[in-house]
Amino acid sequence: MFEFSITSQAGSARTGRFITPHGDLQTPVFAPVGTQATVKTLTPEHLAGLHASLVLSNTYHLYLRPGDELVAEMGGLHNFMQWPHPMLTDSGGFQVFSLAKTRKIDDDGVTFKSHIDGSTHRFTPEKSIAIQENLGADIIMAFDECADPNNAAYIRKAMERTHRWAERSLQAHKRPDQALFGIVQGGVDPDLRARSAEFIAALPFPGIAIGGLSVGETKHEMYRTLEVVTPLLPENKPRYLMGVGTPEDLINGVLRGVDIFDCVLPTRLARHNAAFSPTGRLNLMNAAYAHDKQPIDAACDCYTCRTFSRAYLRHLIVARELLAGTLISIHNLRALIRLMETIRAQIADGTFTTRAHELLKLWQGNAARIHTPAPELLA
Amino acid sequence: MFEFSITSQAGSARTGRFITPHGDLQTPVFAPVGTQATVKTLTPEHLAGLHASLVLSNTYHLYLRPGDELVAEMGGLHNFMQWPHPMLTDSGGFQVFSLAKTRKIDDDGVTFKSHIDGSTHRFTPEKSIAIQENLGADIIMAFDECADPNNAAYIRKAMERTHRWAERSLQAHKRPDQALFGIVQGGVDPDLRARSAEFIAALPFPGIAIGGLSVGETKHEMYRTLEVVTPLLPENKPRYLMGVGTPEDLINGVLRGVDIFDCVLPTRLARHNAAFSPTGRLNLMNAAYAHDKQPIDAACDCYTCRTFSRAYLRHLIVARELLAGTLISIHNLRALIRLMETIRAQIADGTFTTRAHELLKLWQGNAARIHTPAPELLA
Repeated sequence: MFEFSITSQAGSARTGRFITPHGDLQTPVFAPVGTQATVKTLTPEHLAGLHASLVLSNTYHLYLRPGDELVAEMGGLHNFMQWPHPMLTDSGGFQVFSLAKTRKIDDDGVTFKSHIDGSTHRFTPEKSIAIQENLGADIIMAFDECADPNNAAYIRKAMERTHRWAERSLQAHKRPDQALFGIVQGGVDPDLRARSAEFIAALPFPGIAIGGLSVGETKHEMYRTLEVVTPLLPENKPRYLMGVGTPEDLINGVLRGVDIFDCVLPTRLARHNAAFSPTGRLNLMNAAYAHDKQPIDAACDCYTCRTFSRAYLRHLIVARELLAGTLISIHNLRALIRLMETIRAQIADGTFTTRAHELLKLWQGNAARIHTPAPELLA
Repeated sequence: MFEFSITSQAGSARTGRFITPHGDLQTPVFAPVGTQATVKTLTPEHLAGLHASLVLSNTYHLYLRPGDELVAEMGGLHNFMQWPHPMLTDSGGFQVFSLAKTRKIDDDGVTFKSHIDGSTHRFTPEKSIAIQENLGADIIMAFDECADPNNAAYIRKAMERTHRWAERSLQAHKRPDQALFGIVQGGVDPDLRARSAEFIAALPFPGIAIGGLSVGETKHEMYRTLEVVTPLLPENKPRYLMGVGTPEDLINGVLRGVDIFDCVLPTRLARHNAAFSPTGRLNLMNAAYAHDKQPIDAACDCYTCRTFSRAYLRHLIVARELLAGTLISIHNLRALIRLMETIRAQIADGTFTTRAHELLKLWQGNAARIHTPAPELLA
């Protein structure tokens, strides 16, 4: 179980197969986020229809509501939400630092107040693993501390704590049907990142996550950090870039050797009426689309693009019909999953490094900026 | 086109086939309501999956937003919302009286202010037909006036106006691919209802609607009114009871010779966490369901019941996930459509009049009261 094999390579980019108890993942892969045991507004049928293969759910949220013990009683997350394919849970670390009302951190763990009702809770590495064992995802995460990227002194401390918590997470981990990934931290300091990558790489994790990015640093910093980290990771383990998922970040991540991504962006944008398209992000509430008979993207094979006009989607938005969010979510997720399919095909046929620029150009209107990868990545 | 043939009878109840340009309807039929060109939170794929055959949309809403001319430009309602099966639009009359901010009625028509932005508009019989021709549903309605059931003097006046408007609607109606139904009014006064039924029955409508019910009268009054009206209608025309759709109202309506029903109830209840079940209406937010592994109704064949536990649905509700409304809507609509399938089968095999009591008992927990039909209806 959890065998990872690289099936083709192009520069630092690679395609692979990751075997999990709920099926094989073809990497690079993008995972839709189902924070509360549901990818917002979509049924598992929708997800299967857009060829999602991996779904992420959030430990912090499910621990608070409905409770990980209830999920375990219902047969685990796969059975509870009826997603029969691979799943991943994070450690709860990021949410404790970004969502909880207050938090008090010590070397043993974090005491925090729930963002829902203000009640007090405590996460330790052991607790995070116990919760994730109750949830039962195929891929689970070591408990980590995600520090403010602009506070250098704190970042070092948080990184060191993350390393000790990684060792304790490994100790606590028992279920052989769950792959526990370690998490590299270290902010955007190349030396700290290198130290963290080497430390985590030396531990017996079957996969390695890169955390603490897409949290306020620049795109340049994110991509340079990846260029420091991935060369220090073992070739034969899957690499997961946490919480990252604009089209250009996916392309740039794969160029730098990343295998797994997740992000709330496609579904969150959808609920704000924004759709990914090769001609740039569309705000479908715009009056320009009132009479537009075209689909969001004529080249897209999703249910929404095969079925509905922009004019209809705009009508749903203006009339405040919730179906708009569902239909645009279907498109945005399929757009990223289809992008990953294209990338995998281009890596397999050896054209990715030469064609990555094309892909970046095609999707550039969906980002604030374009970051050209270093020439050595395209060689 | 629009041929209606009765295929079996049991007492006053009958099964029939109504041929429309977008397919045949097997009656008695329940139509989900897609007020703003969408059955709230559901895709056309969902509707097809729960075997919906007829969908209603509202003229008043679509005229105001996105505008009937835009719908026409997009190829009509079927094409705009991508529902390829039969559709029905109401005349806008009921909404002008129940939703518009203010209204001023005269013998020629109604001037009203939009509930959306307060802008002033005017509906006449001719205007309502013109809008419905732009929308392009298979079944359209004559413009009518729905009066307060507790104001006897006004009801007579409104009924007489409705009769003159019925004649003008017939005059204005041009599209041969649309069946224009007349509407019987007259409140709950048996004499007025009889007069209205006879008047509308004498006009060359291919089908007849019964309006002005389920607007505040008692169940007893509703059922007695049907018992006055349907015997006065031609046997060979479909009868449509507007805006009625609790399980027991469907059973009682069919017992009294009704062929077509529509109601927002199943989808509205769903968005308020209430699910139809043979053991009574379930409030799925109830803590009693927190650990309940059963589906809403183990005998139901809908996607929701085949897939999800009550515990999961309750979690979605408590976590304020919109998917709850989608999943419960699927179940509630399928429950009523399945009830109609059962009723049709029982009429066809001659058991409906003897088994209607059983059905009423089975579904009684979903209503405030049960109204036993007059014995002659069960004969």
